Amino acid sequence: MTRIVTVGAAQLGPISRSESRQQVVRRLLELMHQAKAAGCDLIVYPELALTTFFPRWYMEDQAEIDLFFEREMPGAATRPLFDEAAKLGIGFCLGYAELIEESGRTNRFNATILVDKQARAVGKYRKVHLPGHAEHEPWRAFQHLEKRYFEIGNLGFPAYRVFDGIFGMLICNDRRWPEAYRVLGLQGAEMILLGYNTPVHNPPSPEHDNLANFHNHLVMQSGAYQNGSWVVGVAKCGKEEGVEQIAGSAIIAPSGEIAAAAVTQGDELIVARCDLDLTRSYKTTIFNFAQHRVPEAYRPIVERKGAVPPP
Amino acid sequence: MTRIVTVGAAQLGPISRSESRQQVVRRLLELMHQAKAAGCDLIVYPELALTTFFPRWYMEDQAEIDLFFEREMPGAATRPLFDEAAKLGIGFCLGYAELIEESGRTNRFNATILVDKQARAVGKYRKVHLPGHAEHEPWRAFQHLEKRYFEIGNLGFPAYRVFDGIFGMLICNDRRWPEAYRVLGLQGAEMILLGYNTPVHNPPSPEHDNLANFHNHLVMQSGAYQNGSWVVGVAKCGKEEGVEQIAGSAIIAPSGEIAAAAVTQGDELIVARCDLDLTRSYKTTIFNFAQHRVPEAYRPIVERKGAVPPP
Repeated sequence: MTRIVTVGAAQLGPISRSESRQQVVRRLLELMHQAKAAGCDLIVYPELALTTFFPRWYMEDQAEIDLFFEREMPGAATRPLFDEAAKLGIGFCLGYAELIEESGRTNRFNATILVDKQARAVGKYRKVHLPGHAEHEPWRAFQHLEKRYFEIGNLGFPAYRVFDGIFGMLICNDRRWPEAYRVLGLQGAEMILLGYNTPVHNPPSPEHDNLANFHNHLVMQSGAYQNGSWVVGVAKCGKEEGVEQIAGSAIIAPSGEIAAAAVTQGDELIVARCDLDLTRSYKTTIFNFAQHRVPEAYRPIVERKGAVPPP
Repeated sequence: MTRIVTVGAAQLGPISRSESRQQVVRRLLELMHQAKAAGCDLIVYPELALTTFFPRWYMEDQAEIDLFFEREMPGAATRPLFDEAAKLGIGFCLGYAELIEESGRTNRFNATILVDKQARAVGKYRKVHLPGHAEHEPWRAFQHLEKRYFEIGNLGFPAYRVFDGIFGMLICNDRRWPEAYRVLGLQGAEMILLGYNTPVHNPPSPEHDNLANFHNHLVMQSGAYQNGSWVVGVAKCGKEEGVEQIAGSAIIAPSGEIAAAAVTQGDELIVARCDLDLTRSYKTTIFNFAQHRVPEAYRPIVERKGAVPPP
């Protein structure tokens, strides 16, 4: 059997701070048209796809920070994306900064939504693994203040039935954490959509900057294989406001093999015809969880946050 | 700082069913001498290193099965290994089938022991992730009856302080399960010793036999990187009793990079000078668990064994 979902991974080049939402949405629409022409059922945009990657700056004025957030989805600037998607009959996945009033207070998340071919929002995910730091660290060449500007996502790792399959979402740093893929795998996820913004240079560990691209693929390939799932990794890349970000967008098969890969540092659509039934050869054999997992041996994973060395 | 542990991964070629323990131990001793000459602190042998990989056969006579098990470690045949190790001042890690009377009954495990430079057994691990099946399946070209001949290990994933570092052990199929590495990572493991016997052909999923070597490295490299640990993967390989097994023994750095790799399908020692302090650049930054993990989001990992798709 085959269950083909044709997916476009819409890599984005840099977005400057001065670029308006409207300008960015025009770039997203151009990629959406390319995806439709390529027969895509679904187009996947990166993390925080509507603005520059603002956590690189320390800002104190909350009003200034909030300019990077969306208070509505769709809002005035993003409405054309939904309208065009409905017209074309294409789904999409979009990362953005979400500002929302919930439980009587203002919450800010690094979020992504999944939109079906009728332009209905059918899924949402809020980033769990916020990298970086919460306080200004002037010694860094640039900041990575996700722990300051966002709260930890409060939706867990939900999976959704859509596009004739089971879909999950992760965001950027989540991809380095096998726990994140596994919680999706335990819901039978067949395709994981994953946008990222990853600077080449990590100020606390510059000694492995040269491995940034290798690590990017390594974790997505193993996450795919170990859960028998497709993984669609989509970068915002190139030199953005003076900071070099890795590209390397890739559509990865349940085998862990790279089925499609970006070859530029800019706006670029890559496409793969993804057979969701290819997941079965893993999920029903070597990664048949019900047959082979031993949860009682895994308890430290939830009972312990940090490492505790033996005495 | 550096904390160098020089490790030898002692890949073994095939062991025939007719080969005696004494004959095998002679091969192990030859590799141990090579390791000593190369300045090794520690030599790592594969899974079930003393016999042929017997779970490939269906046997009904328990006495026949038990011939492949060790009732003592060291026993008469393995004593020379301990004696020589003590004389040379080299540690070792050895996989074997363990038969032991515990809690008033006979238990059988796929086990490995860690022996220090004074030939003291300082650590033990019993394989948790038993692959294969429990009943005779004559349609297979060969059997993989680990679920029949062994019990699930009852020691968890213990880590030990030895060789000036923190060491853990895994066995074969464990390496495909990120939970196993993570439980070791949560104990600060700096080096994970891992022997395997992996047929190229997996009867239930022959469609990805061609990827066996790729998957072998992929899971060990990601397990190393995602826990900031060295991983020493050691094969029993080549055509054993008519079954082709993968080679690909490798010593993998905490970066996920392959620092040393076997290039034959037979008995072969590979060596790396492993700096345990290279783990720090990962364990204290991007994989600083205490800073970045979110255990409350991981609960399905222990609360669920098999996958439960969304409604």
